[in-house]
Amino acid sequence: MPNRVYLDWNATTPLRPEALMAMVAAYELVGNPSSVHAEGREARRLVEAARAVLAGAVGALPRNVIFTSAGTEANALALSPGLRSAAAGPVERLLVSAIEHASVLAGGRFSTAAVSQIKVTPAGVVDLHHLRMLLGSGPPALVSVMAANNETGALQPVSEAAAIVHEAGGLLHVDAIQALGKIPFDIKAVGADLATFSAHKIGGPKGIGALVFAEGVAGLEPQLRGGGQELGRRAGTENVAGIAGFGAAVRVGIEALAEDANRLASLRIRLENGLRETKGITVFSDAVQRLPNTTLFTAPGLKAETAVIGFDLEGIAVSSGSACSSGKVQPSHVLSAMGLDPQAAQGAVRLSLGWSTQEADINRALEAWRKLGNTLLKG
Amino acid sequence: MPNRVYLDWNATTPLRPEALMAMVAAYELVGNPSSVHAEGREARRLVEAARAVLAGAVGALPRNVIFTSAGTEANALALSPGLRSAAAGPVERLLVSAIEHASVLAGGRFSTAAVSQIKVTPAGVVDLHHLRMLLGSGPPALVSVMAANNETGALQPVSEAAAIVHEAGGLLHVDAIQALGKIPFDIKAVGADLATFSAHKIGGPKGIGALVFAEGVAGLEPQLRGGGQELGRRAGTENVAGIAGFGAAVRVGIEALAEDANRLASLRIRLENGLRETKGITVFSDAVQRLPNTTLFTAPGLKAETAVIGFDLEGIAVSSGSACSSGKVQPSHVLSAMGLDPQAAQGAVRLSLGWSTQEADINRALEAWRKLGNTLLKG
Repeated sequence: MPNRVYLDWNATTPLRPEALMAMVAAYELVGNPSSVHAEGREARRLVEAARAVLAGAVGALPRNVIFTSAGTEANALALSPGLRSAAAGPVERLLVSAIEHASVLAGGRFSTAAVSQIKVTPAGVVDLHHLRMLLGSGPPALVSVMAANNETGALQPVSEAAAIVHEAGGLLHVDAIQALGKIPFDIKAVGADLATFSAHKIGGPKGIGALVFAEGVAGLEPQLRGGGQELGRRAGTENVAGIAGFGAAVRVGIEALAEDANRLASLRIRLENGLRETKGITVFSDAVQRLPNTTLFTAPGLKAETAVIGFDLEGIAVSSGSACSSGKVQPSHVLSAMGLDPQAAQGAVRLSLGWSTQEADINRALEAWRKLGNTLLKG
Repeated sequence: MPNRVYLDWNATTPLRPEALMAMVAAYELVGNPSSVHAEGREARRLVEAARAVLAGAVGALPRNVIFTSAGTEANALALSPGLRSAAAGPVERLLVSAIEHASVLAGGRFSTAAVSQIKVTPAGVVDLHHLRMLLGSGPPALVSVMAANNETGALQPVSEAAAIVHEAGGLLHVDAIQALGKIPFDIKAVGADLATFSAHKIGGPKGIGALVFAEGVAGLEPQLRGGGQELGRRAGTENVAGIAGFGAAVRVGIEALAEDANRLASLRIRLENGLRETKGITVFSDAVQRLPNTTLFTAPGLKAETAVIGFDLEGIAVSSGSACSSGKVQPSHVLSAMGLDPQAAQGAVRLSLGWSTQEADINRALEAWRKLGNTLLKG
């Protein structure tokens, strides 16, 4: 769409040209990766090459990468009773931070009674004291803490969480979907036992994700059964082109990470300085480390849904909190967990930037905000 | 690959050019269908247009179409305890024909104890007497019978099964993955309560499938939770391009069905006449109605794996039974169910044709067979 400014990269990112090229090349192959003929073997090679790229990018072995249909499926697969390692588990309960994605809050394959929430601080960071307290009483736990929050961008203390969880004989799952390609992420460096990723948050296609785990993690039961794909851990013909596109996006995204992060961080400073010219602006989680690309803000009297529509009419695509459920107008569970009252939690607007964001885009967003703010904040 | 002949269309089909075009167009859209801005709404339109195409093609309402990541996920979603309609259920057990795809044999979300198998005749057709017998004793059942078998191509008596199942207060699921685009299939005409489809068997991309159900079917619990997508029945960001490609493949495939079917049927007659020149050839299920594109054959002493490799070296891609599990060399469960001994069940080679198959391809396959057969059948 001409003259549009897209500032909703945390909802989904435009496809990297390299990913599109990899996918179109994959579409020319006709084989099923499970077939033994040459066509099948060529498809298999593409899948395994992408697996090696993702594994290398996040510090895992290729055999410990399971491709899934999306981050949601990867999270559901990860959250599995019975997981264990040499030192921990088998896990019988699940502790999730209160600001996790809806697919993690849903608890995967744990019963509702086996799931507890870990509190977060008013700045939107997981409360490690509360985590320790919850771990202290009860059987081995699987703990799920995201690397970075999708709404505020706040980075979470996942390395510290890993140490605390392991000390208590538990396992740590890290939803790294918003982190991949935005900040360095390596499961060994973090000490995560499992981590999940989604292609369409890093310039790959929608419809492909992955669960990655550390060597030695065992007890993962497949959700989809009836075929030997993914070493028997996820049945179904592989999304060959999606996997190839995911691999290409990871390769390019990781290569560009340092440069992109610096550029986006300075664009965001410009953006937030501009927003702060409006009286009473709050930028959430600005006292803690955040992803370089994410700004979640509000102002007294702001209604997020109206603001999103206003921005849209000015040609700017922005979001009100998470866009993962269609058409919901609910207070953000993230802001609620941070202690904001429901009205304030309905007034937050998110601008998220990406590799093709330019200074001119930030200027246009700020112009739109000045125009809109005058009207929206009058009431 | 130049000079190759692809005769493994039941494993996966080459992408239709129209599907590729639809996908590339979709990749140019940047939005998440759950986002309210213009980019999100455009992505939503593509998804809903494809949903309407598939619904129209199979006699369902768009609101009763759930897109999934593949046929395997669609089958797992369909096989759900508690399903009911005004006249039937809630189902407490599952009856599956012995020749179903591995993802159906796995039983979905029924416990192993709640699953029974329906026998098939030596010709590879579901034994309706046995179905009646199984239905007669026990609580309401969900019955799963495929429209056409992927290995033999044998059409199954799904309309008759629907009448029998409904008479007994049960529900019928039809795996129509191999039927779509090859023979007419309409859930209302069949009387199916649920039916499943896969894009990559009809010229769409790998990684997208669908579950479709009749109006009034209720009690379907989501497998993937934590987002409102697919009317709350399947969480996760939609595979927009995959869905668009599926829609395009269905549109083109259904338009071309009658012409393709006639052309393929006559090519197959040529193929089977040629094969029958070898002494002792058996073409499985040739006494019953089959898909127009599928030939499964054997000859005394034939070893399928060796034959597949031999054909491959001659430039012809063929299959030994189902290609859904990587690298397995097991007797075909379909042929075993038809009463063949394990050795014979390991000797079957499948040639499956598709819209781009030409007479020259058949001639090359027959030349290869004559050459190979002389060697392979000597022992």
